[in-house]
Amino acid sequence: MSSYLKSITAVKPLFDRVLIQRAKAATQTSSGIYIPEKNQEKLGYGTVIASGPGLVGEDGKLVPTSVSAGDKVLLPSFGGSPVKVGGEEYIILSDREILAKITE
Amino acid sequence: MSSYLKSITAVKPLFDRVLIQRAKAATQTSSGIYIPEKNQEKLGYGTVIASGPGLVGEDGKLVPTSVSAGDKVLLPSFGGSPVKVGGEEYIILSDREILAKITE
Amino acid sequence: MSSYLKSITAVKPLFDRVLIQRAKAATQTSSGIYIPEKNQEKLGYGTVIASGPGLVGEDGKLVPTSVSAGDKVLLPSFGGSPVKVGGEEYIILSDREILAKITE
Amino acid sequence: MSSYLKSITAVKPLFDRVLIQRAKAATQTSSGIYIPEKNQEKLGYGTVIASGPGLVGEDGKLVPTSVSAGDKVLLPSFGGSPVKVGGEEYIILSDREILAKITE
Amino acid sequence: MSSYLKSITAVKPLFDRVLIQRAKAATQTSSGIYIPEKNQEKLGYGTVIASGPGLVGEDGKLVPTSVSAGDKVLLPSFGGSPVKVGGEEYIILSDREILAKITE
Amino acid sequence: MSSYLKSITAVKPLFDRVLIQRAKAATQTSSGIYIPEKNQEKLGYGTVIASGPGLVGEDGKLVPTSVSAGDKVLLPSFGGSPVKVGGEEYIILSDREILAKITE
Amino acid sequence: MSSYLKSITAVKPLFDRVLIQRAKAATQTSSGIYIPEKNQEKLGYGTVIASGPGLVGEDGKLVPTSVSAGDKVLLPSFGGSPVKVGGEEYIILSDREILAKITE
Repeated sequence: MSSYLKSITAVKPLFDRVLIQRAKAATQTSSGIYIPEKNQEKLGYGTVIASGPGLVGEDGKLVPTSVSAGDKVLLPSFGGSPVKVGGEEYIILSDREILAKITE
Repeated sequence: MSSYLKSITAVKPLFDRVLIQRAKAATQTSSGIYIPEKNQEKLGYGTVIASGPGLVGEDGKLVPTSVSAGDKVLLPSFGGSPVKVGGEEYIILSDREILAKITE
Repeated sequence: MSSYLKSITAVKPLFDRVLIQRAKAATQTSSGIYIPEKNQEKLGYGTVIASGPGLVGEDGKLVPTSVSAGDKVLLPSFGGSPVKVGGEEYIILSDREILAKITE
Repeated sequence: MSSYLKSITAVKPLFDRVLIQRAKAATQTSSGIYIPEKNQEKLGYGTVIASGPGLVGEDGKLVPTSVSAGDKVLLPSFGGSPVKVGGEEYIILSDREILAKITE
Repeated sequence: MSSYLKSITAVKPLFDRVLIQRAKAATQTSSGIYIPEKNQEKLGYGTVIASGPGLVGEDGKLVPTSVSAGDKVLLPSFGGSPVKVGGEEYIILSDREILAKITE
Repeated sequence: MSSYLKSITAVKPLFDRVLIQRAKAATQTSSGIYIPEKNQEKLGYGTVIASGPGLVGEDGKLVPTSVSAGDKVLLPSFGGSPVKVGGEEYIILSDREILAKITE
Repeated sequence: MSSYLKSITAVKPLFDRVLIQRAKAATQTSSGIYIPEKNQEKLGYGTVIASGPGLVGEDGKLVPTSVSAGDKVLLPSFGGSPVKVGGEEYIILSDREILAKITE
């Protein structure tokens, strides 16, 4: 583990960026067979770990992000920057790229 | 079914995004022959399940989406993010990408 | 015919979109020979069936479309979304894509 | 000739579009040899047949086109939509694409 | 010579366009050997023949071109529309594409 | 070492640019085996050496960079200009390209 | 030498452009071996020879360039227009493309 990043909580997204932990795909089929990591389907869901302050609009006012820590969200198929810390997979997206909140 | 998404009603689109359930193509020819899923034509129609709050315009005012839940709409040939929940096919488009309402 | 679309009049274009029925190409040569559909030339003309409300400009005012139902128009070579209803071919273009009106 | 377009004068360009008749290339070499149509050089000049009303600027005022019917103009090498009526070749360009007027 | 263009002085650039005559490359090496036209290096310099009125800025005021007839200018490696009149080579660039004036 | 650049502290980024020293990847595996430079993983972290004054917004006010010298930052997978001084690897990014601060 | 350009001082960049003389790469290795020109590394540094007046902002005010004659600057890996005068290599970049000043 690099001396920089001991825990993901140290990562503070800038601007309107949002740090999301991807939901984990099933590692076994329903009949118990192990699925190798590369075949595990990348789920389009995740949980917000942290979000940036937002973006300053044309009128000079700060527009906060529309999601915040703890929200469950629906991810787009493409885009974002992958981040790996402690074996866990995260992704950093801009607020505008996130498709929807999942409220249940 | 992932622990996240038990039902599509949990999905709350963000910004000016619209969640649409695609109309189902005929699974049998008129003479009763079953059409395999991959040959079923993707219909360009669908029903709005939910729409986001809209987008803030340059003047700072919120511009709501031009369609809302229950509307029948005409879909573009390209674009949007596919979403699959409980075997059903949905698509998330931005309000501006939707071609037309179908009012009958 | 899908349960959605019994008649093209049900299609209400959104924003500055315009629904146009393409003029039909000759199906026979002048000497009476039938031209197979795929060889029939796609004419660059058509008649406006319906147009959307228009677009809201930067000053917040609604700018209506420059064409309306019944207008004869000249179509660009590319662009637009094809729509097929009851065997007839239509196309949905944005107002800005239409080249000219044909006034005779 | 389609029932739509009996004469080019029926074509009324929209917005800032300009309808131009391309100058005809020589069909014979100076020594009288006929040049097949496909080898005839496409001249970069033409005469304005009609121009649209212009475009509404950010301040809401209409900006008329900088050329009008009868002007001789210099055409760009690329761009524009070709239109053929009664065997004659025309092109529709936006005002901004036209390079220069030819005043002699 | 087309009936349109007897002399380059008839060409009046539109908007912020500038008509430039390219400086002629040496047609002989210093030791007198003739260089075939296609091997003659295209020089990146030229003289302004005429310039358009300029462009209207966002504030509605006309911004004139930064070069005018007679100025010597440095041309970019790419861009612009070539124009040939009476065997001479000209190029039409927008004001913004011209790199520099040459004042000596 | 070029006569220009004796030390990285001489480099003063312009506008909203940020000069970052990339964190060094491990040069040995945990069991002590040397990793040749080209196989060393490019880490996505780094330390800010210097940042520019910022960018002037549409309202004419200067918007300073969101990071400053000494900050630990998370780098995007792509973009930026590589700079090598005294065998050390640096990268120059615009403020908006930096993903997050690392605060521990 | 073309009759146009006797000396680089005649070149007056337009708008926000900056004329830069590239620092010369070593023509010999430290052990005295001559490096053929095409193998000489293109250094990313240079000295500003001249800069244009700047660009007019949206508010109508002139924004001067952030560098001026004599400044040492760090060049981006790509972009700009190469200019060769009297065997010397120069490059013309826009102010915004220059990465940093080198102040020592």
